[in-house]
Formats: sequence, structure tokens, C-alpha cells
Amino acid sequence: MAKQIVTSGIRPTGQLHLGNFYGAMQNIQRLQDNYHAYFFIVDLHSLTTHPNAEHLRRHVIGVAKDYLAAGLDPNVSTLYAQSSIAEDICELHTYLSMVMPLGELLRCPTFKEKAKKHPDNVNYGLVGYPVLMAADVLIHKGTVVPVGEDQVVHLEMARTIVRRFNQLYGNVFPEPQPLLENAVRIPSLSGQGKMSKSDADDTYISMQEATDAIHSKVKKAFSDPERVYKNQPGHPTVKGCNVYHLHSFFTKEDQISSLAEQCRQAAIGCVDCKKHLAGSLTSIVEPFRERRNQITDDDVIEVLQAGRIKAKASSEKVIAEVRDAMGLRMF
Amino acid sequence: MAKQIVTSGIRPTGQLHLGNFYGAMQNIQRLQDNYHAYFFIVDLHSLTTHPNAEHLRRHVIGVAKDYLAAGLDPNVSTLYAQSSIAEDICELHTYLSMVMPLGELLRCPTFKEKAKKHPDNVNYGLVGYPVLMAADVLIHKGTVVPVGEDQVVHLEMARTIVRRFNQLYGNVFPEPQPLLENAVRIPSLSGQGKMSKSDADDTYISMQEATDAIHSKVKKAFSDPERVYKNQPGHPTVKGCNVYHLHSFFTKEDQISSLAEQCRQAAIGCVDCKKHLAGSLTSIVEPFRERRNQITDDDVIEVLQAGRIKAKASSEKVIAEVRDAMGLRMF
Repeated sequence: MAKQIVTSGIRPTGQLHLGNFYGAMQNIQRLQDNYHAYFFIVDLHSLTTHPNAEHLRRHVIGVAKDYLAAGLDPNVSTLYAQSSIAEDICELHTYLSMVMPLGELLRCPTFKEKAKKHPDNVNYGLVGYPVLMAADVLIHKGTVVPVGEDQVVHLEMARTIVRRFNQLYGNVFPEPQPLLENAVRIPSLSGQGKMSKSDADDTYISMQEATDAIHSKVKKAFSDPERVYKNQPGHPTVKGCNVYHLHSFFTKEDQISSLAEQCRQAAIGCVDCKKHLAGSLTSIVEPFRERRNQITDDDVIEVLQAGRIKAKASSEKVIAEVRDAMGLRMF
Repeated sequence: MAKQIVTSGIRPTGQLHLGNFYGAMQNIQRLQDNYHAYFFIVDLHSLTTHPNAEHLRRHVIGVAKDYLAAGLDPNVSTLYAQSSIAEDICELHTYLSMVMPLGELLRCPTFKEKAKKHPDNVNYGLVGYPVLMAADVLIHKGTVVPVGEDQVVHLEMARTIVRRFNQLYGNVFPEPQPLLENAVRIPSLSGQGKMSKSDADDTYISMQEATDAIHSKVKKAFSDPERVYKNQPGHPTVKGCNVYHLHSFFTKEDQISSLAEQCRQAAIGCVDCKKHLAGSLTSIVEPFRERRNQITDDDVIEVLQAGRIKAKASSEKVIAEVRDAMGLRMF
């Protein structure tokens, strides 16, 4: 049986940190191994809220480097910039916009949220975000779409669009199925919620962090609040200690058991335990950083150009079929 | 000085009648002589309200025949189907949608009207109609757009879009100026309002009407209500007699004076006066009908294919400049 087609968009929004790297890497591996995968950097979507295109190219190249360093193999999957096949995506987007009910778009929670955040820039394209997303998927006749929980409603709209389109013009598109992403929540160094780049600089570890910076950030990390002195026994559980929680993701199983045992017996202090965690994080960040540093801008451009050709081969076939079904493009 | 660029959309909505022929012909002549003109048949716009594409091709060919028979010279101007350059129009449309405020679109009177008329099909594309119209104009950097009074508000939106786009991405587009069309209102044969195809069949003259049908329709036309008997003097003025009103458009000046004089003296009856009018109308419809009948489907297809090539040469240049200005399409 032929592999199913998966489409996955990547936002060009700056450097990876340890939190989203963890999720992204898992995701890439799973998709690459099991599907015929199209990964694309959504530079067009950025325009609705970030019309300033000055840094766009730099961001696209940067995020491509991140994903290549994280294990995306462009020989197995297809990696391209959304704008590389803009003509086909936008044409499909325009046709799909004519079957998508306006009311559903206006009621969409993510639209309401964005409209609230940028009240001076509520543009026509913003409310149509789910339609453009549907075009991204359907331009390859994607059958599976990895989604976070907040994206489930968008995929539901894509399915509505497919049903309405097929009803009018024949059975052109498959209904894409959601693939719920494992929502891995790597905790913040501060102990407050998950790691996020919108929080203070010392609450997250960038995937390009220097080794000494990792050590100094982890040194200040929030740990067991009930362990004030080194000779007190600690509470090495996910709920009891934020540093333990971080260990549980990044330190080897047997080492964690040993650290926990020592902690409960007050045989190891927080300073040493954090040093160990910093070492674990470094062993993930350092090889990534080195892999990433070896990727040149020219490498990325070559990958994206090859990706464009593969993506275009798929998109031009689909758009031709769409025009045909709609009775357009007669002359 | 180079000629200004004019863009003019034509709806593919069935046969011309005498009323819209008169306006269209005047319009074509004026645009063809004074501008670098792009005429296009808006088959994409039709999708928002007429998603059934079954008859679209037939309508596009029909309306192209009408305009060619009415005097559009494809060697002087460019005539093409909007869908022939769909990829460029739709791509520009998508970019423009991201600078067009949603609120203005929702408040647009023509949107409200259409939403009221098709409450079960208020789709995302419907509210974006003015954005697609702006793309039609701007894809050729049109500087002049002939508009009826109900379209002035749409052109104002296109100008808003241009100002916002240029502010963000540099001085790419000129602000298109409206060219108000002479609103010629040819009266209905019934004497009630202007000639319209949505009224009863015997109230208008199709441009494909057979000569005997013209005579029998005009015979029943509403004339001077105060002249009941042939020996009563008539009131040959625009307000006094609907048949006189029609003469004023289609009969030669000196003949009108003579008919009016005879009418005022009761020297000619309504039956003969109407025969004269039917003759005037026939002298317009008949040569049109013959010219139109000589145009084959193959002729039209050839014209539209040549038009596509000319239109594409212009549109692909503009979309390349747009991508460049926006910092897109880097790979």
C-alpha cells in the first residue's frame, strides 16, 4: 500500500529552544518514517500578522537549518518554503474561499484571539487563515495533518471545505485526518508553566545556547522549594521538584534513579544535581549546535530549491485537476 | 506620452439586449481609442454566486462573441478570460487580502445586498469580491477603471488597498482612477423603467432578435397614453411618449423631427410611427446579428488564446515585482 500523504507547516519564528525542539524532533521522526511527508515553512501565513518582510528570508533560512539539524532528511521528505509554490496555493485558496462559509470563520476562536491582539490590523486575510491552511494541505491532497489541540478546529474547517467542494465539483479531495501531536510540555526553568521564548531569557534554553550559559541558567533554576538546606532530604518527583521534572526528560533512566535515591537521602545537594542536569542538556544542545553550525546558507538554499521542484511537481498536478473539475481554464 | 492602462471586466451573463449593447459599444469604442485596454471576462467572480460551472464555458464564448460583434478589436485591445491568468490574479488577491481591513468589506453595500439575496451561501469569497476586483486591476497596474455608480465604492477600496500595500512594501502600484461610465438608460418597451432582461420577454429587444419579432414587440410597445385616437394630436417628447423616447436613441435626427412634426399634427398614427421605430432597431440589431453569426466558436477560442498570451506577459511581470517588493519567493 502506498504511504499516506502528510503535510506539516512550520512557522518561521526564530530559534528553537529545548522545549519545542523536543516536540519537533519527535514529530519529524515519526512523520518521516511513516508517511510521504511535505514539510513547508509558512512564510505566506506570516504576512497576516507580520507584514514587515525585512527579516523573513533570514528567518526562513534559520528555521530550515533548525529542522535539518533536528533530523529532517530532505532526501526522504520534501522541505520547501510555502511561497515557492505560491501561485498554486493562492489559486486554490481563492477557489476554496468561495465554498467556505464566512460565519464559521468569524466564529473561529483563534481568529477572535488574533483580532483582539491586533485590533488595528484585522484584515480580510486574517479571518481566512484556515482557508489558506486548507489550501496548504489540499494542494498535495494531504490525507493526514499533524495538529496541536488549538489547530483541531482549523482542520475541521478544512474538512468542511472538502465536503462542500466535492459536493459541487466531484470527488477531487480526500478529507484530511488529524494526527494529534503529543503535547510534550517541557517545564520552564522558573518552575512556572512550560518553557517559552516569550518568557524571561533565563527561563529557557535555546538550542544555540553556549555550554557555559546552559550551566549558569540551570544553576539558577527553581528546584524543590521545601529543601532549604543541603542536609535536608529532597522530594525528587515531577511535582515535588522542577529540576527532577527536567531530568525526567533529558537524563538517562538509570542516572535519574541514582540521583533521586541520593536526593532522598540528602547525599547529593541541589548544586551538584543541577550540574548533572546542565550536563544532560549540554549533551543534547551541543551536538545540535554543531550540526547546525555546519549547515551553510548555501546548503539551505540548495535544499529549498530542490524542495520547490518536488513540491511543484505535486501542486501543479493538483491545481490542473481542480481547474478541470471546476470547468475553468478553458482557453 | 504612453497611453494609460485601463482594465474593464465583463460578466459572462447571457445575451446582450439593446439597452446594454448601447452602453457597452460606446464604452468599448472610447476605451479602445484612448487607452491601452485590457478587457476580461470575469469567470472567476461568477463562482461566488454561481458555483455551477456547467454552462460557464458556453457563457464565456457567448459574451466574447457579443463584444467582438459590438466592435471590440482584439488586435488593438486585449480580450481574455480572467481564469486564463488565474494563478497570477489569485496570488495577488491573496497578498492584497492581507492588507484589506475586514470591517470595510463587511460594511460594503453590495456585499450586504448579496448576503441578503443568498443567505444560505454567504461565503468567505463573497465578502472579498472587492479584493479580487482590485487584483484584476492591479495585476496590470491599471490606472483607469470604467465604473458604474454602484462600483465606485469598490474602486475606492482598491485605492485603499494600494495605499496600504505601497506603505508596507514600497511604491509598487498606481492608485487607479475611476472613469464614470455614461449611464445610458434605454427605456423598456413597457414604459416602466429601463430595458432589462429580468423583466418580461416583450419589454426588451435582444441583440439576437429576429426582424419579425422586433416588429411584433415594438407594435405592442407602450406609447403616448393621452393619444387614444389617431386623429388626436400626440405629445412627441421624452416624457410624453415612450416610443418617441426610444426614437431619440435609435432614429436619425432629421427623421425624428419629421415624425414629431407629423405626430403633433395627427398626420401619422402610432402604428406607422412604431413601424418606423422597428425599422430603426432592425437596422442596428440585424448587422450585429449577422456579424455575430459569422463569428465561430473556433474564432473566439483563437482570440481568447492570443489574449491569454498578451495578458500573461503583463501579469507575470507585475507578480514578479510584487514578490520582490514583499521579500517573497526567495528560493
